[in-house]
Amino acid sequence: MIAILVTGGTFDKQHNELAGTLTFKETHVPEMLRLGRCRVDVAVRQLMMIDSLEMTDADRRSIADACLASAESRIVVTHGTDTMVDTARTLAKVMEGKTIVLTGAMVPYAFGSSDGLFNLGSALSFAQALPAGVYIAMNGRAFRWDDVRKNRETGVFESL
Amino acid sequence: MIAILVTGGTFDKQHNELAGTLTFKETHVPEMLRLGRCRVDVAVRQLMMIDSLEMTDADRRSIADACLASAESRIVVTHGTDTMVDTARTLAKVMEGKTIVLTGAMVPYAFGSSDGLFNLGSALSFAQALPAGVYIAMNGRAFRWDDVRKNRETGVFESL
Amino acid sequence: MIAILVTGGTFDKQHNELAGTLTFKETHVPEMLRLGRCRVDVAVRQLMMIDSLEMTDADRRSIADACLASAESRIVVTHGTDTMVDTARTLAKVMEGKTIVLTGAMVPYAFGSSDGLFNLGSALSFAQALPAGVYIAMNGRAFRWDDVRKNRETGVFESL
Amino acid sequence: MIAILVTGGTFDKQHNELAGTLTFKETHVPEMLRLGRCRVDVAVRQLMMIDSLEMTDADRRSIADACLASAESRIVVTHGTDTMVDTARTLAKVMEGKTIVLTGAMVPYAFGSSDGLFNLGSALSFAQALPAGVYIAMNGRAFRWDDVRKNRETGVFESL
Repeated sequence: MIAILVTGGTFDKQHNELAGTLTFKETHVPEMLRLGRCRVDVAVRQLMMIDSLEMTDADRRSIADACLASAESRIVVTHGTDTMVDTARTLAKVMEGKTIVLTGAMVPYAFGSSDGLFNLGSALSFAQALPAGVYIAMNGRAFRWDDVRKNRETGVFESL
Repeated sequence: MIAILVTGGTFDKQHNELAGTLTFKETHVPEMLRLGRCRVDVAVRQLMMIDSLEMTDADRRSIADACLASAESRIVVTHGTDTMVDTARTLAKVMEGKTIVLTGAMVPYAFGSSDGLFNLGSALSFAQALPAGVYIAMNGRAFRWDDVRKNRETGVFESL
Repeated sequence: MIAILVTGGTFDKQHNELAGTLTFKETHVPEMLRLGRCRVDVAVRQLMMIDSLEMTDADRRSIADACLASAESRIVVTHGTDTMVDTARTLAKVMEGKTIVLTGAMVPYAFGSSDGLFNLGSALSFAQALPAGVYIAMNGRAFRWDDVRKNRETGVFESL
Repeated sequence: MIAILVTGGTFDKQHNELAGTLTFKETHVPEMLRLGRCRVDVAVRQLMMIDSLEMTDADRRSIADACLASAESRIVVTHGTDTMVDTARTLAKVMEGKTIVLTGAMVPYAFGSSDGLFNLGSALSFAQALPAGVYIAMNGRAFRWDDVRKNRETGVFESL
């Protein structure tokens, strides 16, 4: 059993056609799991639905609390890419004995040509195969929380 | 460095609009890797482009030969789902010391609502994280070659 | 009020993921009208769901009967492209005083990159704007039933 | 020959993945015409690429000038939906003897589930079939410029 904790990010943004803006509504994770014909036993919990640039320390603590409280020892966290590394660091300070994989997307899943489905397949797989620790799964790779940064010029995650 | 060996299957089928049929042309794997913003160092090689129901023993031997000859010790094989388990068995007989992950799709990537991108993200991740052995990555899970079958009623891969 | 008579064709084909074949299930016309935010008052009737290469004279007569019986004087008929011209000729022989527009698609709507949505928008518009007569709306153009053929080399409809 | 004058609007917005915002780059009209297998003889001209809420009187005059200067007597104008009716009114004041059809979209074409392709098929068809005048083609219907408003609650265009 794997927990999927949803926090928002580009991954889950969608287009509000009356306002003409990017906004959040429901998470797309259950629909993505259906599309991927995923048969991993998962529990999806929506913790918050925010842009990671607006994530506060209190938000990060509540994600950490949810990871600590989770009965599952393997956890995927969907997250905006801009501060994903910060949240990974917060989680690494308090977690022990669980495999936690953060992932997200550069393009909203709802926009058709998204990297989200690829990343979700990747994150769920790394969450099953990697030993306890906190990781970021982006660009088809898994990075340890203390050896990763988002290159803001290219939008690509890379080792330090 | 991971080798991706392409053999065809539903994964790569597309619609021939003049004939109104499902056919093969080029593999979609490079386009899928771009969409997934994949930055894993991969070498894509197209071995054949066939429906797995038409795959012969000679075809399976040539896939095994390509795995043996491959300089990469981590290999993803894209394959039709109908006889994926048979090919996995063939590979398991001759391979040693390499991690080989077979994957495919129930819906062609070119058809928009495909499980292919999810499966490719999953297979590439398992190929990086699992120890040497032959596996099938479908439905978000990784199965050992000797503990998996495709349920033909549901289209889902499951343990024996 | 416009009647939309559904007969099948590539327009409505979809992928059967257990069999790996192209088949018919339900028509996609209502979903397409929703996607197009269509607010034209329409009545969708599914007459048959077949490949137009398999359409018999009896099938064509039943389409003609449905057009004659229709209370609406403006009618769109969705149809396979291969024999669309034949059905248009059959309809032209018996119809008077109604605007009938046949349309279809080269790529199934369900496959993501289809011409179907463009053609449906085109056909519904020509059906509202053109005088009584039988027409084919394909490739953004409207052709009179007696001045059109499908070029089988290119898949494009053209004047004689 | 039909002129397609591009001014921007939701129709042509796309997702900037580095900034996480909706922006303009190139127009998608040529790609949409390819997808629709359109064989109407068209000349696509990009006049500006802006949100219609930011359109000034000077912008509207330049659209009117382009319509007046156009050698083609049938013209499609792609436009944001918020002030489409205002631009239609401006065009109606100066145009005579040409068929001008404004259209747009509630969802960007680039986002997969857009009404844009349906609307483009509709607008091009109305532009061919309607007599001289200024019209808005949205929701599968054609409205005269002086009998239409956008309902801001529903996002739907309706008669006065």
